[in-house]
Amino acid sequence: MEELRGKEVVEAIQSECLSFVQKEACLPTLAVLRVGEKEADMSYERSIKKRFQDFGLEVKDYHLEENCSNQEFQEVFRFLNEDPEIDGILVFRPLPPQIDEEEMLSVMKKEKDVDGVTSSNLAGLLLQDPDAFAPCTAEAVMELCKYYKIPLSGKEVCIIGRSLVVGKPLSVLMLNADATVTVCHSKTENSKEVAKRADVLVVAIGKAKAIGSSYSKEGATVIDVGINVDADGNLCGDVDYDTMKTVAEKLTPVPGGLGAVTTAVLAKHVVKAYQLLH
Amino acid sequence: MEELRGKEVVEAIQSECLSFVQKEACLPTLAVLRVGEKEADMSYERSIKKRFQDFGLEVKDYHLEENCSNQEFQEVFRFLNEDPEIDGILVFRPLPPQIDEEEMLSVMKKEKDVDGVTSSNLAGLLLQDPDAFAPCTAEAVMELCKYYKIPLSGKEVCIIGRSLVVGKPLSVLMLNADATVTVCHSKTENSKEVAKRADVLVVAIGKAKAIGSSYSKEGATVIDVGINVDADGNLCGDVDYDTMKTVAEKLTPVPGGLGAVTTAVLAKHVVKAYQLLH
Repeated sequence: MEELRGKEVVEAIQSECLSFVQKEACLPTLAVLRVGEKEADMSYERSIKKRFQDFGLEVKDYHLEENCSNQEFQEVFRFLNEDPEIDGILVFRPLPPQIDEEEMLSVMKKEKDVDGVTSSNLAGLLLQDPDAFAPCTAEAVMELCKYYKIPLSGKEVCIIGRSLVVGKPLSVLMLNADATVTVCHSKTENSKEVAKRADVLVVAIGKAKAIGSSYSKEGATVIDVGINVDADGNLCGDVDYDTMKTVAEKLTPVPGGLGAVTTAVLAKHVVKAYQLLH
Repeated sequence: MEELRGKEVVEAIQSECLSFVQKEACLPTLAVLRVGEKEADMSYERSIKKRFQDFGLEVKDYHLEENCSNQEFQEVFRFLNEDPEIDGILVFRPLPPQIDEEEMLSVMKKEKDVDGVTSSNLAGLLLQDPDAFAPCTAEAVMELCKYYKIPLSGKEVCIIGRSLVVGKPLSVLMLNADATVTVCHSKTENSKEVAKRADVLVVAIGKAKAIGSSYSKEGATVIDVGINVDADGNLCGDVDYDTMKTVAEKLTPVPGGLGAVTTAVLAKHVVKAYQLLH
């Protein structure tokens, strides 16, 4: 079994970003906008700030109180959206209920939407718009497949999970890459049988170790998008690694798999945003 | 074998539209904008004008010369887009090369986009926005399934074809209806085998009689989206009806199947546009 580690993918993306930044002598900048103090948000923010240095990028962080007013939020957001020194904007979601997310999305510049949350970027996936940003996690799966030269054209790809941030956009990206794509979800009647047909199985359901070897055929490539904490407090994926490794030919570990690639894709998007805006 | 005829579906949609129009004593109006004189466009236009009367709706048609300027086109389009007497706009595409389609799409009101071509309506499919318009042909498949009570939740639906007007949007609509969705296309390696797994097989590839009984399991529902002309000059679908009827349990004929449902869905969208705008 070959372990598909994220580290090498991250290094490849990093060297692409660094070479652009050094050649252009520029400093593409991401604004991170956080409302409140959710631990998951703060942890992702720390990891972005730490890693972006290695990519030659700047991060500016903006924090608002959990109970800030909608007006206050929209003013900060519009400032970042207009500021020529900001290339990309990442807003942690879900936002508190008093914040009008639609108002934010309706004004957000497509070019600064580096996490692919606006309608124009979502539609861009279907339209195969080369300037559109896909949600970072979905694109991280594509980057991993590209780096490890996983054949996709004409192959059967099964995605378990149909969320707006992974399953749905990934199904479009995989279709655009000429894969034969099946999306499974909680209502699927025979999901083991369906998943077993896949040459490439992608799991994104957010349930610790829920998908074991009975979901994969011998020799498949299995990509685990999940990041969960197990009963012992350790990080784990949606895939039960220990049983899956007995049937899969290629498999991403958690931790050490897709997580860091997602942050690297965010960095790549900030560089692309800089290019689109300049 | 049960024939899934379009006529009954059209009548159901028609009586819905008529009852709204009569209750509200209103006249929802579609503007049809055609550039040039393509026979396929003119034929669809005639059929819309004829059928919309029966739905209690008005059609206003606007024609421009094939060689009209982009400025001329955009002026007419903006006039219709702003005119409070126009509820929906249908523009025949593709447009001649001198017309800037993106300019048109960027200003088009989401509420008037009754054929679901703008980014906000395409994204609305992924976002499950109840006010979004899906492309009429894709939604016609859903209406047909609804009318004939074809089970979709948890069932395997295979769509052959991945166009922007049918395959891609339909895959999202089917996923939103809790089907387990597979999309096949020209690059799919084993398309017969894949198609044979389907409880519901939808064919939208635009090739006369290309899909025969070897693509369907016994007892499947087969929906033929194609409208082609065969070697003898007769209308036919993408499905080879004569062989398919020996294995499929339910099958749409061509003509007499989905075509008229698409026009009925357009009518339903014009009524919905009227509701959104008023």
